Amino acid sequence: MLKIAVLGCGRIGRMHASNIVAHPRARLVAVYDTHTPFAEEVAAAQGVHLAKTPEEIFSAADVDAVLIASATPTHADYIEAAVAAGKPVLCEKPIDLSLARVNACAERVRDKGVPIQIGLNRRFDPGHRAARAAVAAGEIGELHQVIITSRDPEMPPRSYYEQAGGLFRDMVIHDFDLARFMLAEEPVEVFAIGGRLIDPVLMGELNDYDTSMVIMSTASGKQCHINTSRTSTFGYDQRVELLGTKGMVQSLNRKPVEVRKFKAEQVEAAEPYLNFFIERYREAFDAEIDSFIDAIENGTPVEADFEDGRRALILAEAAMQSVAEGRSIGVDEVL
Amino acid sequence: MLKIAVLGCGRIGRMHASNIVAHPRARLVAVYDTHTPFAEEVAAAQGVHLAKTPEEIFSAADVDAVLIASATPTHADYIEAAVAAGKPVLCEKPIDLSLARVNACAERVRDKGVPIQIGLNRRFDPGHRAARAAVAAGEIGELHQVIITSRDPEMPPRSYYEQAGGLFRDMVIHDFDLARFMLAEEPVEVFAIGGRLIDPVLMGELNDYDTSMVIMSTASGKQCHINTSRTSTFGYDQRVELLGTKGMVQSLNRKPVEVRKFKAEQVEAAEPYLNFFIERYREAFDAEIDSFIDAIENGTPVEADFEDGRRALILAEAAMQSVAEGRSIGVDEVL
Amino acid sequence: MLKIAVLGCGRIGRMHASNIVAHPRARLVAVYDTHTPFAEEVAAAQGVHLAKTPEEIFSAADVDAVLIASATPTHADYIEAAVAAGKPVLCEKPIDLSLARVNACAERVRDKGVPIQIGLNRRFDPGHRAARAAVAAGEIGELHQVIITSRDPEMPPRSYYEQAGGLFRDMVIHDFDLARFMLAEEPVEVFAIGGRLIDPVLMGELNDYDTSMVIMSTASGKQCHINTSRTSTFGYDQRVELLGTKGMVQSLNRKPVEVRKFKAEQVEAAEPYLNFFIERYREAFDAEIDSFIDAIENGTPVEADFEDGRRALILAEAAMQSVAEGRSIGVDEVL
Amino acid sequence: MLKIAVLGCGRIGRMHASNIVAHPRARLVAVYDTHTPFAEEVAAAQGVHLAKTPEEIFSAADVDAVLIASATPTHADYIEAAVAAGKPVLCEKPIDLSLARVNACAERVRDKGVPIQIGLNRRFDPGHRAARAAVAAGEIGELHQVIITSRDPEMPPRSYYEQAGGLFRDMVIHDFDLARFMLAEEPVEVFAIGGRLIDPVLMGELNDYDTSMVIMSTASGKQCHINTSRTSTFGYDQRVELLGTKGMVQSLNRKPVEVRKFKAEQVEAAEPYLNFFIERYREAFDAEIDSFIDAIENGTPVEADFEDGRRALILAEAAMQSVAEGRSIGVDEVL
Repeated sequence: MLKIAVLGCGRIGRMHASNIVAHPRARLVAVYDTHTPFAEEVAAAQGVHLAKTPEEIFSAADVDAVLIASATPTHADYIEAAVAAGKPVLCEKPIDLSLARVNACAERVRDKGVPIQIGLNRRFDPGHRAARAAVAAGEIGELHQVIITSRDPEMPPRSYYEQAGGLFRDMVIHDFDLARFMLAEEPVEVFAIGGRLIDPVLMGELNDYDTSMVIMSTASGKQCHINTSRTSTFGYDQRVELLGTKGMVQSLNRKPVEVRKFKAEQVEAAEPYLNFFIERYREAFDAEIDSFIDAIENGTPVEADFEDGRRALILAEAAMQSVAEGRSIGVDEVL
Repeated sequence: MLKIAVLGCGRIGRMHASNIVAHPRARLVAVYDTHTPFAEEVAAAQGVHLAKTPEEIFSAADVDAVLIASATPTHADYIEAAVAAGKPVLCEKPIDLSLARVNACAERVRDKGVPIQIGLNRRFDPGHRAARAAVAAGEIGELHQVIITSRDPEMPPRSYYEQAGGLFRDMVIHDFDLARFMLAEEPVEVFAIGGRLIDPVLMGELNDYDTSMVIMSTASGKQCHINTSRTSTFGYDQRVELLGTKGMVQSLNRKPVEVRKFKAEQVEAAEPYLNFFIERYREAFDAEIDSFIDAIENGTPVEADFEDGRRALILAEAAMQSVAEGRSIGVDEVL
Repeated sequence: MLKIAVLGCGRIGRMHASNIVAHPRARLVAVYDTHTPFAEEVAAAQGVHLAKTPEEIFSAADVDAVLIASATPTHADYIEAAVAAGKPVLCEKPIDLSLARVNACAERVRDKGVPIQIGLNRRFDPGHRAARAAVAAGEIGELHQVIITSRDPEMPPRSYYEQAGGLFRDMVIHDFDLARFMLAEEPVEVFAIGGRLIDPVLMGELNDYDTSMVIMSTASGKQCHINTSRTSTFGYDQRVELLGTKGMVQSLNRKPVEVRKFKAEQVEAAEPYLNFFIERYREAFDAEIDSFIDAIENGTPVEADFEDGRRALILAEAAMQSVAEGRSIGVDEVL
Repeated sequence: MLKIAVLGCGRIGRMHASNIVAHPRARLVAVYDTHTPFAEEVAAAQGVHLAKTPEEIFSAADVDAVLIASATPTHADYIEAAVAAGKPVLCEKPIDLSLARVNACAERVRDKGVPIQIGLNRRFDPGHRAARAAVAAGEIGELHQVIITSRDPEMPPRSYYEQAGGLFRDMVIHDFDLARFMLAEEPVEVFAIGGRLIDPVLMGELNDYDTSMVIMSTASGKQCHINTSRTSTFGYDQRVELLGTKGMVQSLNRKPVEVRKFKAEQVEAAEPYLNFFIERYREAFDAEIDSFIDAIENGTPVEADFEDGRRALILAEAAMQSVAEGRSIGVDEVL
C-alpha cells in the first residue's frame, strides 16, 4: 500500500483523494490546502491527517509519494520540494504557465531518480488506449491523420478563467498531450485560431478564447486537427479519430446507459453523454494512479512524465503565438 | 424487353406498374381493373393499352407475362387463366384465403412449365439477403434462433380489414415466408397469440387481431419468433435477427438520411425510419421483377414460387388455429 | 454502516462479499460456507470473521443482516432461520426449486416484519430502469409488447447444470422477473419451447434445454416474448425492447469501451459486449445492495421481494409445463 | 420535358446522361465529346443524336439546355457559347483552373438572364440538406463550428492527376462549397497544409498533395475545419458536423444495407460505406437536375450558381497559397 499525501483540496484534489482512498494499492495519509477549510473538510471526511504546511508533508516519514492538485503557480515549487525530499510526484497539469519556469524546474529535477508524473489523464482512458493500441498493432496501417474533438459541457466561472492561463494552456493542453500520444511522433508545426463566440465580452476582457481550431504536422508529414469549445449542451464531447492507410479507428463518447428511444419525431435517441471529466475519465484517473504506483513500486517508466508535461505546454505556447501572428509556428521557435 | 400486363390497379398494382415502366428490361403493355377508372388512370399516365376484360390480356399476343395485383379472391382464377394461356405469372400474396382453393389451383398449374412467382417481396430485400447470405456462408456457424420484428406504421382502414383475411393471412404471411427463407428449413410446429390492443372494438367486430406473437420450431430444433403490430409511430419496423453458434447477424431498419442530432435531452437521434413498404422495400420490388424476368428469359428457378406462397399460407392457418386452441399446432395438422 | 454476513462463498458469494466491502454504507462482518476452504479464502482476503456454522451467523449480535449466496437447497432454510432471528435477508434466486417448499417458506416468514429481498438483480440495472421509467412516464404511450433477449456467453460446466434446476428455473427466471417488472402486470398465460441445440447429448441426459423461446400474455392483453440461449460468442446478450402506442424504448448491451473500427471489410465494428453478469450488472448489484440497505435503514419497501421471487418461479414452472404439454399454461393452473 | 444535350461523355458525363434519361422531367436529346468513340457509345446506348461539333449543340433548336461535363479547359468557353446562344447551362466544377479566366467568363455571362448552375452536387444531398435545415430552423442555436470530412476511396490514376488542377481545386473544391453552404457566411481567412503521404513520389513529381487539412474562419468568427485524403479503405468518407450553442447535428456516411454482424472479435460491424460519388450522391445528382429544371421552367433561383463556383475556386486558391506560404491567407488577398 503506497502512502500518498494530497496537496490541494479543490475539486480535482478532492476527486484524487477519493480515488486514492478507494484504490486497492494506495492509502491516503495526509492532505494540505492553503485554504485550510478545504483541507479540513477532506481530512475529516476521509479520516486522515491535516498538514499545517506543505513542508510537513514533504518531510513526513510516512508519506511515500505526493499528489499535487494545488493552484498552478505552486506546482513547480512543490515538484522541486518533493524531488528534493526524494518523494515521487504526481502533479496536475500544467506544470506552470511559464515555459521558462518549467525549463528551470526541469533542470533542477533532472536525473534525481525520483519519478515525476504529470496529470495528463486522457492517455490513460481505456477507449483512447484501445484506439492507440489498434494503431500500434498495425490495424489501420500507417497513421496519416488524427482528429481530436474536445468540448467542455459548459463555461467555467470567471474566477476560474482569471487564473487558468487561457484556453490553450488550460484546456487544449490535454488535447496536445493526447495528440502526441496518438501520433507517437513530435508535432513540428502548429497553426491555431481562437474564437470568442460563447462569451465575447468576457473573452475580450481576459484576452482569452472560448472556441478554437488547431492544425499540427509532424516531421514525417502526419496531420493532426484539434477542435475545442467551452460549450457542449449534449455532454462532455471527447472523441479521437485516427485515419491510416488500411482503415480508421475512433474512440467515442460514453453514455451513462445504453437506452434508445424511438418516436414519431426521431429514432435511436440516446441519453446525453457523461457530463464531465470526473465521470467520463473515471477509469482514466484510476489507471493514472495505477501507473504511478507501478512506476514507484516496480520501477516501470512513468507514462505522462515531466517532459510530456513540458511538451504539451510548448504546443500550447506555439498555438498562442500562431493565433497572435496568423501563421504556422515551428515548434523549434518556441523550444 | 419483357412485355408485361398488370391486372389490378390499386395501390400496389400502381406501384408495380411504375416499377415495370422504370425497369430497364421490362415494358408495361396493358392494364386492367374491375374498377375501370383505376385502370384508365394508370393507362393514361403510362400511355399503355386499357384492357376491357382480363381475357383480353390473357389472349393478347403482345403480352409476354402478367402481374396480378387484383383483389385476393381473383388471384387463383387469374393464375389458372394465365397458365392456361402459357403466360408466366407474378401474383401478389396471398394466393387465396382458402387453403383448399390454393391446393386445387396447385393441382391445375402443376407441371405446366409456366413460371409462377408469388409476391413475397421481403426475401428480395438486399439487407435481408445479405443476412441470409452470411448464414449460408457459415459466418455465424449453425443457425439456432430467428427473430423477426414486423410492425406496420399504422392501422389500415376498416374497408381494408374487411377483405384482407385477418392479420395472419394478410400481414404475418410475409413474415412466415421470411422465416422460411431465413431458416432454410420447414417449421413443423406453430404457436401464436393474437391481441386486440390498438382498436379492440374494430378487431372484436371483425374477429381479427392487431398485435401478435408467434413461436415456431423446425424438425432440427431451430427456433423462430415473430412479433407483429399494426402500429409503429417511428416508421415501418422491419428487422431480422439470426443467432448462430459463432455469432449473430441482424438486418435492421432503413432511414431516409443518415443525420444525427445531439442536444441536452438526448444524443445520436436519427430521422424516423422509411415509412412503409413502397419506400422500405423499393429495392426488393425491383429485385423481385428482375428475378421474374430472369426466370422467364434465362430459365433460372423462380424464387418465391407457388409452393412458397402455399407454405406461407399454411403457416398462417396454423397460427390462426393455435390462437383459437391455445396450443402448439403441428404443421402436418394443417397440410 | 450496515453489518452484513455472507452465507455461501462460491463465485456469486465472493462477488457480493467484495461489493459489500466496497460499499460506502455496508460492512462485511462474517462469512460462512459448507465448503470451509472457500469461506477461509474470503475471510482471509477481506479480513473478516469465519463462521463455523450458519447458526453462529444468525445468532451473532454484530450481524445486522445476511446475504444468502449458498447452494439453492439451503436458501429456504436459511431465510427461515434469518427471519426467526430477526435478521433482514438478501437471498439469491431461486428461493427453492420446489414451489411447494417456497409456498411453505412464504407461510413461515409472512408478516414477521423482517425485510426479505431476492437477488433478482436485473431490475436494478440503470439501463433497464431507465427504460421502465420511460414507460412509466408515458413516453411510449400504452405498453403493448415486451421483448427480452437473454443469452449467456457460454455453457456452464456439467456440475453446474446438475444442481441448477433446469434452464427455466436457473436462467430464464431472471427474465421472468424482468418481464414482470417491465409489464407492471402479472402474466396470466405462458407458452414455451425448449431446444437442445448446443449440447444435445448433455441436455438429453439431464432432461434440460440450452435454448428457449417463451410467449406470455397478461390479463389486459399485453404480450411478452423472451428468447434465451446458453451461448453467445459476442458477449453477454442482455436486451429489453418495449413497444407502446407512442413509440419504443430499448435497453441494450454495454461495451467496455466505445471504440469503432473501419476497414475494407466492415465499418463501425465495436469491441465485444461485457462478458458476463459480474461485469454487465456491476451497477445493478451495487444498486441491489443499496436498495436492501434502504429497506432496512429507512423502511422503504423491498424491491424484488419474496413474492417477486415466488412469482418468477411460478412462471418458470408454467414454462416447464408448457414445454412438456405443448400448450399455453394458465398461471392459475400452477399457483 | 426539358430537352438537354450533354457535352463530354467521360465517366461523369455518362452518369449525367443516364440520370437525364431516367429523369421524369428531362429528356436527353444529343451528346458530344471531342473523343468521338465516347460520344458514339452514349448516343447508341441511349438512342440520341450524336453531335459532330459543340456548335451544333449550341445552335440546335431542339436543345433547351446543356450539361457540360467535358474537360475542365473547355468549361468556360462552353459556358460562354451556351449563354450567347441563350441556352441554360449546368456545368461541372471547376469553372476553370484559372481564377482570371473565371473572372473574365463572369464578365461575359453576367446579366444575360441565362441560368448557369455549377455541378457542386453535395449541397443537394438530402442528408447534408437536412443538417443545414436543422441549423436554419434554429435546432442547434447559433452555429459555431463546421467540421467536414472528405476522403476518396482510392487514388485516381496519374493521368487524372495531371489535368485535375491539384487536390484543392479538384477535390477540396467540393468541400469549400459545402463549407459555404453550411456556414451560410463567407470565409474570410484560410489556412491549409498539404501532405504527400499516400504516394510521395507521384505527388512530388506533380507538385500536388494527397492529404490535407484546412481551417477557415468567417467575419463573425465561425470556424470551419476540412480534412481530406485520397484514400479511405472503408468506402467514400463524407461527413459533416455542425456545432452550435444548443447542440450538434451530423450528416454521416451511407451504407448499402443496414446489416450488423456480431462475433467473438467484434460487434455491430456493418458493411463498408457506399464506395464513391456515383452511389453516395445518387440522390444529390438527381436533385441537382431537378433544381436546374426548376430554375429554367419555374424561374426559381439557381442554387450552386456561377458565383458559388467562383467562390469555391477562390477558397481553393487561398488554400494553395497558404500551403505555399505557411500562413493564414485573407480571402480578399485572392479575390
